[in-house]
Amino acid sequence: MPTKAKRWVLASRPEGKPTAENFRLDDMTLPDIGEHEILIRTEFHSVDPGMRGRLSGDSYTAALPVGETIDSAMVGVVEASNNEKFKVGDRVTGGFGWVTHAVSNGRGVQVLAPEMFHGALRPTAAIGVLGIPGLTSYFGLLELGQPKEGDTVLISSAAGPVGATAGQIAKMKGCRVVGIAGSKEKCDYVKGLGFDACFSYRGADLRAAIKEHCPDGVDIYFDNVGAEMLDAAILNMKEHGRIVVSGQVSEYNRAEDELVGIRNVTRFITHRLRMEGLVVFDYFKRFREAQAEMAGWIHEGKLQYTEDVSEGIEGSAAAFIGLFEGENLGRRLIEVS
Amino acid sequence: MPTKAKRWVLASRPEGKPTAENFRLDDMTLPDIGEHEILIRTEFHSVDPGMRGRLSGDSYTAALPVGETIDSAMVGVVEASNNEKFKVGDRVTGGFGWVTHAVSNGRGVQVLAPEMFHGALRPTAAIGVLGIPGLTSYFGLLELGQPKEGDTVLISSAAGPVGATAGQIAKMKGCRVVGIAGSKEKCDYVKGLGFDACFSYRGADLRAAIKEHCPDGVDIYFDNVGAEMLDAAILNMKEHGRIVVSGQVSEYNRAEDELVGIRNVTRFITHRLRMEGLVVFDYFKRFREAQAEMAGWIHEGKLQYTEDVSEGIEGSAAAFIGLFEGENLGRRLIEVS
Repeated sequence: MPTKAKRWVLASRPEGKPTAENFRLDDMTLPDIGEHEILIRTEFHSVDPGMRGRLSGDSYTAALPVGETIDSAMVGVVEASNNEKFKVGDRVTGGFGWVTHAVSNGRGVQVLAPEMFHGALRPTAAIGVLGIPGLTSYFGLLELGQPKEGDTVLISSAAGPVGATAGQIAKMKGCRVVGIAGSKEKCDYVKGLGFDACFSYRGADLRAAIKEHCPDGVDIYFDNVGAEMLDAAILNMKEHGRIVVSGQVSEYNRAEDELVGIRNVTRFITHRLRMEGLVVFDYFKRFREAQAEMAGWIHEGKLQYTEDVSEGIEGSAAAFIGLFEGENLGRRLIEVS
Repeated sequence: MPTKAKRWVLASRPEGKPTAENFRLDDMTLPDIGEHEILIRTEFHSVDPGMRGRLSGDSYTAALPVGETIDSAMVGVVEASNNEKFKVGDRVTGGFGWVTHAVSNGRGVQVLAPEMFHGALRPTAAIGVLGIPGLTSYFGLLELGQPKEGDTVLISSAAGPVGATAGQIAKMKGCRVVGIAGSKEKCDYVKGLGFDACFSYRGADLRAAIKEHCPDGVDIYFDNVGAEMLDAAILNMKEHGRIVVSGQVSEYNRAEDELVGIRNVTRFITHRLRMEGLVVFDYFKRFREAQAEMAGWIHEGKLQYTEDVSEGIEGSAAAFIGLFEGENLGRRLIEVS
């Protein structure tokens, strides 16, 4: 029996900040599943700032064609199965985007093991703290940042899912952790996670504010923002400081000739700085090991995560647009059903 | 018997490009040497763009006080000695600056071993290809650049002492080496050293010119220039490319609020780039090993170096100012006596 479903498609390419006109919610009818196929009903899909690049096609992944489904991770339930690896009722994750239902041959679909996902570890963690955002925090901080006990770690977008997780891992490694966020409320949240300090960037003299909160300088700057904030951090780095380029959300809506970037490259010489970009998929072979370690931390109460959930697939585009206004606190998800 | 001598001092701090008024040639009279002291007569002193930072005091080394002798390396001859480690006639190197003579207690002064410095290895090499410029090339390329056979290495200021040496070492490591210099004459020189290609930056669309000469992209960019040239290189880097921040000569004369820097930081994420600054003194313990290896290459004819020598200490300031006009080809030296 065909399934009535909905999906968000790219209606037009955004120039600058994305707007409602760039997205369209279409009805669709999914055919009956064929041999080896499964039907998944979406429970939650994610809303990711990093997806902005695909909308314009100026990023490393290919441009999303206009008319195609908007990409994202999702958690769902198998509603019908012709595939022996999946049974009806299995909770699964996959990359089917902003859809209410998906038909799949099972490739890239993972069943969430009930022995792992229970208690504090909710199924949505699979596409959040144990998914790409959390893995970005884990490998970015540990591999590129190389934290040592006593290091001062500065983190931008500290109330976002990547920053909040990176900060908690840095605390576990014995670092002093300072967050930058967009409001006092977000800073209170961040301090509740164990950050030593946090300040709001709004209206701040960034260079002076970082100096005030990191008077001895910064060993690791975990950057999710870029541009002026990155430049201000560079001016506060200690010798041999490491800059992890995790995200550049302040640049994502800028055309190539409007990028702001940084001015203080001479500091790389005078202070022996290192700056390195992360693409988390480079660590694909170690994902399971990292996920198991983070799951352990969550069950032990050492690692918290927060989700910012809106109900109804009608709100997906607005939730995405709002990411660039700094609206979210924690991982932004849409509860579809 | 007191010695009549001359030295260049900092007359005033330059703002922007240094001018003749910032320097003054003073007469001085050196007293007779005391216990454990030696008198050195300068044969050559160096003229270094990296010294620009000390003139303003915005760099990592302390500002040079106005009225003090301008810093540099020198090669000289011991004219008198009350120190058993030095005998009259020894050829030595030290950091006594733009002076005709210096009195020293011997600290930091090294005797050039005649068994090392002969034939192709002239004494001035001790403050050039075996000195800070050459060591910067060696450790910058090998340690930060990590060249692998078949890599494409792009080098700015390729006709300068650092770039020319880095390029020849990269060739020895099996890389394809492309230079950027300031004229066709300099490019001819660079190609004569074994670079595979070279182009002049004057009037060039840098991004397009790099693309033309490195059609498959750049694995290592060894940067002596910074700003627009660095940004254009970033747009041509391959995935996992390494940027060695060796010098930023285009930025040295700019005040902090005039720095140009780079715009394309998002490429660090999309292309997993790494950028790292070099301070060669961090490798101090390995200097002798590197110098011995480079001396071997020079004696075997594998590594060439060029000196751009002007006669007479009266010309030191003009020679320094000219560095920022791209005048020099090879290591700039003043022959004092």
